[in-house]
Amino acid sequence: MATTKKTNSKKKTSARKKAARKKAARKQKFVYSFGDGSAEGDSSMRNLLGGKGANLAEMAGLGLPVPPGCTISTEVCALYDAKKDSYPAGLKEQLKAGLATIEKTMGKRLGDKANPLLVSVRSGARASMPGMMDTVLNLGLNDETVVGLATASGNERFAWDSYRRFIQMYGDVVMDLKPVSAKETDPFEAIIEAKKIKHGLELDTELTTVHLQQLVREFKALIKRRLKREFPTDPLQQLWGAIGAVFRSWDNERAHVYRKLNNIPFDWGTAVNVQAMVFGNLGSSSATGVAFTRSPATGEKIFYGEFLVNAQGEDVVAGIRTPQQITLEGSRTWAEENSKDESDRERLYPSLEEVMPRCYKQLRKVASSLERHYRDMQDLEFTIERDRLWMLQTRGGKRTAAAAVKIAVDMARERLINRVTAVLRVDPDQIDQLLHPTIDQSADKDLLARGLGASPGAASGAVVFSAEDAVSAAEDGRKVLLVRVATSPEDIQGMVAAQGILTATGGRTSHAAVVARGMGTCCVVGCDKLKIDYSRDRMTVGGRKIERGDWVTIDGSSGEIYMGEVPTVEAVMTDEFDVLMGWADKLRTLDVRTNADTPADSKVARRFGAQGIGLCRTEHMFFEDDRILAIREMILAEDLAGRERALAKLLPHQKRDFLGIFKAMDGLPVTVRLLDPPLHEFLPHSDAEYAQQSKATGVPQARLRELGDALHEFNPMLGHRGCRLAITYPEIYVMQTRAIIEAALQAAGKGVKVLPEIMIPLVGATPELAILRKLVEQTAEEVFAKKKKRLKYSIGTMIEVPRAALIADDLAAHADFFSFGTNDLTQMGFGLSRDDSGRFLPAYVEVGVLNDDPFATLDTVGIGKLMEIAVEKGRSVKKALKLGICGEHGGDPRSIMFCHTLGLDYVSCSPYRVPVARLAAAHAALAERD
Amino acid sequence: MATTKKTNSKKKTSARKKAARKKAARKQKFVYSFGDGSAEGDSSMRNLLGGKGANLAEMAGLGLPVPPGCTISTEVCALYDAKKDSYPAGLKEQLKAGLATIEKTMGKRLGDKANPLLVSVRSGARASMPGMMDTVLNLGLNDETVVGLATASGNERFAWDSYRRFIQMYGDVVMDLKPVSAKETDPFEAIIEAKKIKHGLELDTELTTVHLQQLVREFKALIKRRLKREFPTDPLQQLWGAIGAVFRSWDNERAHVYRKLNNIPFDWGTAVNVQAMVFGNLGSSSATGVAFTRSPATGEKIFYGEFLVNAQGEDVVAGIRTPQQITLEGSRTWAEENSKDESDRERLYPSLEEVMPRCYKQLRKVASSLERHYRDMQDLEFTIERDRLWMLQTRGGKRTAAAAVKIAVDMARERLINRVTAVLRVDPDQIDQLLHPTIDQSADKDLLARGLGASPGAASGAVVFSAEDAVSAAEDGRKVLLVRVATSPEDIQGMVAAQGILTATGGRTSHAAVVARGMGTCCVVGCDKLKIDYSRDRMTVGGRKIERGDWVTIDGSSGEIYMGEVPTVEAVMTDEFDVLMGWADKLRTLDVRTNADTPADSKVARRFGAQGIGLCRTEHMFFEDDRILAIREMILAEDLAGRERALAKLLPHQKRDFLGIFKAMDGLPVTVRLLDPPLHEFLPHSDAEYAQQSKATGVPQARLRELGDALHEFNPMLGHRGCRLAITYPEIYVMQTRAIIEAALQAAGKGVKVLPEIMIPLVGATPELAILRKLVEQTAEEVFAKKKKRLKYSIGTMIEVPRAALIADDLAAHADFFSFGTNDLTQMGFGLSRDDSGRFLPAYVEVGVLNDDPFATLDTVGIGKLMEIAVEKGRSVKKALKLGICGEHGGDPRSIMFCHTLGLDYVSCSPYRVPVARLAAAHAALAERD
Repeated sequence: MATTKKTNSKKKTSARKKAARKKAARKQKFVYSFGDGSAEGDSSMRNLLGGKGANLAEMAGLGLPVPPGCTISTEVCALYDAKKDSYPAGLKEQLKAGLATIEKTMGKRLGDKANPLLVSVRSGARASMPGMMDTVLNLGLNDETVVGLATASGNERFAWDSYRRFIQMYGDVVMDLKPVSAKETDPFEAIIEAKKIKHGLELDTELTTVHLQQLVREFKALIKRRLKREFPTDPLQQLWGAIGAVFRSWDNERAHVYRKLNNIPFDWGTAVNVQAMVFGNLGSSSATGVAFTRSPATGEKIFYGEFLVNAQGEDVVAGIRTPQQITLEGSRTWAEENSKDESDRERLYPSLEEVMPRCYKQLRKVASSLERHYRDMQDLEFTIERDRLWMLQTRGGKRTAAAAVKIAVDMARERLINRVTAVLRVDPDQIDQLLHPTIDQSADKDLLARGLGASPGAASGAVVFSAEDAVSAAEDGRKVLLVRVATSPEDIQGMVAAQGILTATGGRTSHAAVVARGMGTCCVVGCDKLKIDYSRDRMTVGGRKIERGDWVTIDGSSGEIYMGEVPTVEAVMTDEFDVLMGWADKLRTLDVRTNADTPADSKVARRFGAQGIGLCRTEHMFFEDDRILAIREMILAEDLAGRERALAKLLPHQKRDFLGIFKAMDGLPVTVRLLDPPLHEFLPHSDAEYAQQSKATGVPQARLRELGDALHEFNPMLGHRGCRLAITYPEIYVMQTRAIIEAALQAAGKGVKVLPEIMIPLVGATPELAILRKLVEQTAEEVFAKKKKRLKYSIGTMIEVPRAALIADDLAAHADFFSFGTNDLTQMGFGLSRDDSGRFLPAYVEVGVLNDDPFATLDTVGIGKLMEIAVEKGRSVKKALKLGICGEHGGDPRSIMFCHTLGLDYVSCSPYRVPVARLAAAHAALAERD
Repeated sequence: MATTKKTNSKKKTSARKKAARKKAARKQKFVYSFGDGSAEGDSSMRNLLGGKGANLAEMAGLGLPVPPGCTISTEVCALYDAKKDSYPAGLKEQLKAGLATIEKTMGKRLGDKANPLLVSVRSGARASMPGMMDTVLNLGLNDETVVGLATASGNERFAWDSYRRFIQMYGDVVMDLKPVSAKETDPFEAIIEAKKIKHGLELDTELTTVHLQQLVREFKALIKRRLKREFPTDPLQQLWGAIGAVFRSWDNERAHVYRKLNNIPFDWGTAVNVQAMVFGNLGSSSATGVAFTRSPATGEKIFYGEFLVNAQGEDVVAGIRTPQQITLEGSRTWAEENSKDESDRERLYPSLEEVMPRCYKQLRKVASSLERHYRDMQDLEFTIERDRLWMLQTRGGKRTAAAAVKIAVDMARERLINRVTAVLRVDPDQIDQLLHPTIDQSADKDLLARGLGASPGAASGAVVFSAEDAVSAAEDGRKVLLVRVATSPEDIQGMVAAQGILTATGGRTSHAAVVARGMGTCCVVGCDKLKIDYSRDRMTVGGRKIERGDWVTIDGSSGEIYMGEVPTVEAVMTDEFDVLMGWADKLRTLDVRTNADTPADSKVARRFGAQGIGLCRTEHMFFEDDRILAIREMILAEDLAGRERALAKLLPHQKRDFLGIFKAMDGLPVTVRLLDPPLHEFLPHSDAEYAQQSKATGVPQARLRELGDALHEFNPMLGHRGCRLAITYPEIYVMQTRAIIEAALQAAGKGVKVLPEIMIPLVGATPELAILRKLVEQTAEEVFAKKKKRLKYSIGTMIEVPRAALIADDLAAHADFFSFGTNDLTQMGFGLSRDDSGRFLPAYVEVGVLNDDPFATLDTVGIGKLMEIAVEKGRSVKKALKLGICGEHGGDPRSIMFCHTLGLDYVSCSPYRVPVARLAAAHAALAERD
């Protein structure tokens, strides 16, 4: 302030120069420090500092105890010349300054023989790319500092173990020592194995300090031998080596593939975070843990977490040791909910609250302020190094669907977030979990054991002990439970294939638990009573033997494990769920209907909030025992009279079905699709069925077979079906129309509000629709005249033949509504038979020809283009044309987003997907707002 | 002139008033006279006078001897009130005036007892609607005038026969006397039949004057009894009755249907032509005939025609009597060409030239002037009434394809027309006839008889004697010849179904001949040696019996009829044909390629003018005996090694095939489509084939069947085929690419100019094309490297999956060309399996859901829209993208027109359709000019 008052021109010039230099310096700023209660960056600087760097800066800026560090910005990634290993001017100096700050905060120095600072060097791009790039830990160790570390930590074994880990990691990542043959997996691990065999040891933890010292020597010798250079002893040289390796890893093959898959531009680059190491494994005053600000399982506002004394973070995540609870409250809750016997309770104690009350209080305060700061439930990683708490990471916590719903609603009620944010906080795909059935508590159960419920729902299946077995069983259509000591990423395919997952070790943050929750697969973890013998494909549980193939049931909420198949009951919606769905309903503009063929389905769907039926398939009704004979008689009739005779028998059945559906949907529209599949789908399959048919109709079996065989088609998908049946056999649609209208009149007579919509399938040419519309209208008029009552109904068409989309303007003149049958539209538009594509579609997704199964998620580029053409053409002729979708895509959130964008009036999906669709529709409407 | 010189104002006003009145009168002009060397209308007034009225006026205006008449304009049709039977004011007077002119010209008066004028009353709309509306002949007869006619004509029987015919026709058409029951067919004919039975007569011609007089009385009595009114005796009343009936017939059911089918608006209306009757059946100085200004069979500039002395026009057309030739030259030519024995020659003599030389000279002069006037070959109808020539009609003559070509080229050379007109004169669909094979003259033949060759080509088939039999045989896929005494319109379906048509009576202008030429079906008429016994389904020819089902061969050019199946030879192109095609080639912008899979086909196509191969299907090559074992081995292999072993066996075969094709197409592009059909199409079909396969490969039969069964698909059209095979089994395309490139290099080494284009089928997603393009390029590079030679080739994709059209911009980035596979594009776009659609497609065309079979003529509205999208998107990314079509639509003229409009570079079709396509492409280019 004093200098600015001196305003002569010279001073001004000088000030200007200074400002320019300052600006230049600012321009050139590459390194951003954080820690000790402050930071040069914050979470808004994600593009420059990467996700990890920005978050660490944000936490530090909040005054939280973050291990100090500095971030080399993403800009450097592009400026780094990998070939010359050269960096932009000024970087070295800036990093040196950053390092000095770290040293100051930690009271340790890099390379200090007495009290050495160790650092980690990690990547951190703008978008998360888990596991794609390289990391180096424990950097700073050499033959001298290891001794200092041993002294300072008072734990010689720890120091040497850290050193050998460092060499191993650095050798691999930075020095690029890779296996030389396909036979060799990991040359360092080979040396460790040899060592263990030599000394008769089983576990790494049994290795003594001496062994570890030997390993260090042997590792360094290996590097020298293979790479013809020494392992670097200078910590600064180590540091620059690690920084270069991280930048280079941005350009590795894995990262390229991952970016391509996730649409991450190459030029974003990665930042590099250099951060002081802290250790949770320095004895009984050290610990490491993971905590959630609210329960990730139920969403309850309970501070919840797990920790291990004298352990490193990976020990918690790996699920090798079963961790203790952090809070007394959490421990109690879990114990009460999950474990009824004392031994289980004991296992969860003592809590961190009891063991390290001061650190616990600090952690709890940190957690509260982070949740308030981020306005979301946080997943925290922390380490306590000799009674000093360090926060390693915070992020929005993964949660079950139930928790997501409860947290969102609770936070909105607590005014932490608004309702729009609450709705956006719940992933529509995820809430599918909530709609799954649970164990029937009243059923007879044979309790086998109890673990930790890690992902809700209930699952039964034949036990398998390997991912491969799970995959092959699933391919055969068998239901299996995957049982493992602990799962690892290699088990993913098996976890996908299994109905449920059960592990003997690990907590709720173990691999199995996290992955299962993400997939919505039922999961129980940490059931250490399971003694699994992989080699014999069996396990024993408290003396009971369970072989591969035996059925077991697990409850992913209670953690209970039962012998055999236990009955399940429907999901019950929580109040919070209803509240959230109510908020979603107010936000969405798309209606959500259901695909339902029976009164029972209709009722379920209505309970889930369906606003009508978008697709009632009439053919399923034909398969019931008392009807199939009549439908077969119709198909195998040799003339019109014979067909009409058989149809007359079907009429009362269809009418009864429609009556039930209309009643269930009182006040809501019901779209009935007239007969669609090729007639041969209803033919008898066996000799016995032919015999039965022959007896019922008096037509000889041989003749029936002849008539049946004549219906064979080469490509039934493109054959004589849908409206084509009605052009050749109008009497079929006449019967169906009569059944619909008569049922509607009867329901209306009983005070039910009926809104029937009659839908003509497989229309590809305008005259098909024109002719059949007339047929339906004439038939309806006949019924009205006979019953001396009328009611309003509408007539529309499916858009499922590609040509229909292209002539939608012509069709619109004859249609009150269009309903996109995207299953068939995809089959025809893609030229892809769903029944046959299994032979190549997996390969297609694998080699990247397709990103998604087009039958699961709408192909917006191709099939979506056809829909767009149809919408545009249809509305150009008839503005009020009602538009919906009734293919299975109607329950897929990404497809719903597209339908919203297209301006459809409704989506229709299976009853259990209705809430998913309601929420997805709200998300779509909100996405459009932005 | 004198009055116009008086120019005071009063006169002016008066003149103005007069002009206004005149104008009003002109406005009100409804009746246009013609005849006696002049006419009030001409051919430009078709909309007002209808086609027939305008043509009669034109002929009369040329000074030709047209029977005088007048035309009531089409405007009256709308003004006529059918309910009140009332006409616009002024019409009655105008018609009266017109009638007076007729009477004056003919020297006869309507209703004159001594010398009565008879008139015809016929419809005549803007567009021809043959047989759809009503006609009345011999109008003006009553009990008094019939006596006058008898006296004036000197032929009492003729007069009474005309009278009974008039009553019959008038009773039906005007008075609407229809059968009263389904049993009764024609009440008048029933009376005639009764009369003949009573008097033991067989033919109508055996009825005497007395019988005819009785019939007249009985007819009138029938009318009185049934209709409760008298037959009108006043000729003027008769006339107005007939005029009303013609106007009303515009509104009849048949006419409505016909107009709908042919897109003729209702409001065009019909004109009514009232014309003096002339009679060719007034004894030996009267005659009637049909003439062509050039030969309708060969196109030679020979005045050619047929006539019958003492006959009416219908006698010639009906083919009941075999007519004589008009010219000596024509007679000679025909006799020389068609009939080698004297008896046949005699039949054709004496010619009109000999019998009535004066009329003949006049006719010849008239014919010349008409041809010059219309600049086209004319089909003339004439009648000679007692040595006086009357021209009844002239129109562009129907002709064979050969005649069309020759006439067009000759006329252009004679400077009657220009080359553009010449090209437009030949219908591309028609020239297909020229490309049909003919009888092998060197083959052993068993000549049965000789008739008149009426439509060129050669045909063999099993004899059937009814249209129904022909239709049902064709449905069973059997080849038949339809043999009839004479054909009638009811036989049309049978004529379409038959390979050829043979009649016992009739000339080259008979129904059978005209229809057969129009369809391009081989036809022989007038073979009176055939004695057909319909009741026994057999015929005798000179003592030889031929039963239904016996094979016979006919030569539609020579008129020869042979027993059994006679071998045929290829069509030979005439010079005129080449000249015309040359002109067409200069006009067209579309290239024409061929679909050919073998060197032989390639050569044929090249001879027909193909500019390359647009589609070489590699799979047909696999079906040959020495290869099918290897392809089956490939399909049934259990691993990659097995497949590669089998593919190695196929490589030399494919390479040899490609070599032959490249040589045949030296200098022209060859598009090779890589393997397309699902593999199961190649599987063994029988136990014997499985046994053979098992023996060849050493794999047990049971295992082979298992592997084969596993390939079953529900919808193979939409299954694992096309490029999908290559994504899963790249080795197949690798082998094929190697074969193509190796063959191309080898051919090039021998000095052949090779332009290979490699085409990837069934692409629906961009990565498919990108991946396979890379595969083909890598394989080609390997071959180039190995052979140390390179050559240019291109890589493109089929557009046959609807989605491909929608993502054509993305695909274009990876394609050098697009080829529209419209067969599959139609199947998928329409959702219509070609193999299965037989069950409903006929019904679809019948009830009007579809106007055309979409597999024969491109559905421009739907499938064409997809093509349009693809062209637009493809060219938006790559301007130079080469575009073609290789579906069967590539040989269909209407589809070619569309392809031209789309801006494609070429069409590709079967070798025999190449000339059709060349001409159609020229027509398309010319249509665009307008």
